[in-house]
Amino acid sequence: MRILILGIDGYLGWALANTLTKENIEVFGIDSFFRRKWVKEMNSLSAVPIASMNNRIKSHKKIFNKEIVFYKGDITNYNFLSSKIKEIKPDVIVHFAQCPSAPYSMMNQEKSAWVQSNNLIGTLNLIYAVKEHVPEAHIIKLGTMGEYGTPNIDIAEGFFEIEYRGRKDVLPFPRQANSWYHLSKVHDSNNLQFACRNYGIRCTDIMQGVVFGFYPGENNIDKHLYTRLDFDQAFGTSINRFCCESVISHAITVYGDGTQRRSFLPLRDSMKCIELVIKNPPRQGEYKVVNQFANVHSINDLALKVAGVCKQLNMDVNIVKMKNPRKEAALHYYNPDNQNLKNLGYNPTTDFEQEILALIQGIKPYKKRIQLHSNILNPTIKW
Amino acid sequence: MRILILGIDGYLGWALANTLTKENIEVFGIDSFFRRKWVKEMNSLSAVPIASMNNRIKSHKKIFNKEIVFYKGDITNYNFLSSKIKEIKPDVIVHFAQCPSAPYSMMNQEKSAWVQSNNLIGTLNLIYAVKEHVPEAHIIKLGTMGEYGTPNIDIAEGFFEIEYRGRKDVLPFPRQANSWYHLSKVHDSNNLQFACRNYGIRCTDIMQGVVFGFYPGENNIDKHLYTRLDFDQAFGTSINRFCCESVISHAITVYGDGTQRRSFLPLRDSMKCIELVIKNPPRQGEYKVVNQFANVHSINDLALKVAGVCKQLNMDVNIVKMKNPRKEAALHYYNPDNQNLKNLGYNPTTDFEQEILALIQGIKPYKKRIQLHSNILNPTIKW
Repeated sequence: MRILILGIDGYLGWALANTLTKENIEVFGIDSFFRRKWVKEMNSLSAVPIASMNNRIKSHKKIFNKEIVFYKGDITNYNFLSSKIKEIKPDVIVHFAQCPSAPYSMMNQEKSAWVQSNNLIGTLNLIYAVKEHVPEAHIIKLGTMGEYGTPNIDIAEGFFEIEYRGRKDVLPFPRQANSWYHLSKVHDSNNLQFACRNYGIRCTDIMQGVVFGFYPGENNIDKHLYTRLDFDQAFGTSINRFCCESVISHAITVYGDGTQRRSFLPLRDSMKCIELVIKNPPRQGEYKVVNQFANVHSINDLALKVAGVCKQLNMDVNIVKMKNPRKEAALHYYNPDNQNLKNLGYNPTTDFEQEILALIQGIKPYKKRIQLHSNILNPTIKW
Repeated sequence: MRILILGIDGYLGWALANTLTKENIEVFGIDSFFRRKWVKEMNSLSAVPIASMNNRIKSHKKIFNKEIVFYKGDITNYNFLSSKIKEIKPDVIVHFAQCPSAPYSMMNQEKSAWVQSNNLIGTLNLIYAVKEHVPEAHIIKLGTMGEYGTPNIDIAEGFFEIEYRGRKDVLPFPRQANSWYHLSKVHDSNNLQFACRNYGIRCTDIMQGVVFGFYPGENNIDKHLYTRLDFDQAFGTSINRFCCESVISHAITVYGDGTQRRSFLPLRDSMKCIELVIKNPPRQGEYKVVNQFANVHSINDLALKVAGVCKQLNMDVNIVKMKNPRKEAALHYYNPDNQNLKNLGYNPTTDFEQEILALIQGIKPYKKRIQLHSNILNPTIKW
């Protein structure tokens, strides 16, 4: 099976490349190295040092005896993407090649327009290249649970059956995203849904919760195989940021009341789920949505979990609340489904403390590196 | 009141400029003349000759004794749009500056990407310029009834209250658009909804049915005030196309079974509705949706109406059915609401025959012009 990972140099992309190590899988990768550039723009860097793509691939070969075929390029260039897909003829394309940051997209007009057009055109180009060269390939697209917002009803997986004025239909679940980035994912969901219906191609669209952790959670892995771990205001997600704060004895900074609830999963679970999705393609012409997360937690829950693990390790940390830089409801209903992946065999990790422990132990050796950049922990991007 | 029309050179834009002739209204316009370029690309032209913008403005002044202030430029250039909005300080901005053609957007990868990014970025720039310079201005955005598709339930106006698993919420009505163009409008609807919620700006989003007619329906108007009337496969809408076919004794060409049902309104009604919307701005921070159409008809209904009018005029026409170049359901439920505009005072035109008669009489003098381009009546863009 030939699997092409778009965005192979990113947090999820590089972790996935090191997950797909089975003999019958050939991994191909494309990346523009934009993620490294964006994080630099935020005056930040990965908490753990990451290798160049050349060294990543060399180490991967040494350890797994498998060659990753890599092409540097930007998928918003249609000729580039189309020629590579024609050449590779992938069975599966995992599409991570997008700008994934809400704060980055909310900085100013230029960033908003760039994030939306970058994400939209990349996906549109992928649709055309697949329709043209590999119409049976399975597109696996990364969406986000943030597409749904926080409605006052249960969140179904992509579609729901409703009755309205006495008539019934199965319709797309309404999206209420809260940043230009999250909206770019909504646009992609709508575009992909149409593409499957109209061109008969097939796609699994993953609405993913907030990922955390330091895959693969083992500290004896070759350092060149480390995936990145960001902790700045734009590219660092909450648990990762809390853990980086903890190891430098910085207070754990909770935005707002901390009562806002979201869905989360360890990076390890994300990889397991994507493997399950790869093994279970939708039928030709189908656009299938899965909600991918382990558990729902409030931000306060998570801060307490991180603080609890720190206490076990005799690390002294405080939790402080700061004015929320984002517009979010503090108190709201939130009850999303995640049965589709369970039906494929996903058994969610419930012990987040264990994952947090592995993460903190993994980043502890890089305390100084984080400390040198601790000024970026303060959020300056507001909306 | 200062009203800025983005896309003032287009079918609706120029008609609106000639509608807003009241003394207390100052009209400003922006256009890139892209519509003229696109129609040329289709090897076509307006069935009725249209004047240059210079001559349009001169004639407007002669007849209404009012000066339209016009700037040529592309709103996807943020600096251009922002500086003009800063300078003009409009109270109302009517946003027609988009590529409005489903077939054009379905031609190939390049056109799809261009239509989506052009429409998306123009609106995003407008949001930023309004937030920056005129946060109280009323944005009136043209959407389309095609955003909703043809669900098996009644179509509400933008939002609907639903009960799901025993809980209730008012949520965005699901969109199921069927072309890259229609999807670009869905993306804009989602972006504008967020912009109102997040930045506190205000917008009326008009989900418009298919417009037809030769505004203002009177043939003694100065010819320089004519708005364009397209009949090619990409920019000609069904009734306008049927009428152009009729005057050159070409068969009226119905796509598919003709049983597909859509919402329609005369151009005259569209102008009345937009005037009502201008007079009734939403409150600050509100995103209000109105469905703007007079009646629902099948394509067969409309072909028969056009043929009926032709018979009265002793014109001999046939109706022929041709393979549908688009993927559309032939038989489907379709029952959209349009109460919001009625609540503002809209009294829909029911006598479509009268409007069709005015249209046919208006274009009859240009029979030869249409005849010379009759080869463009055959649809070659398929999806």
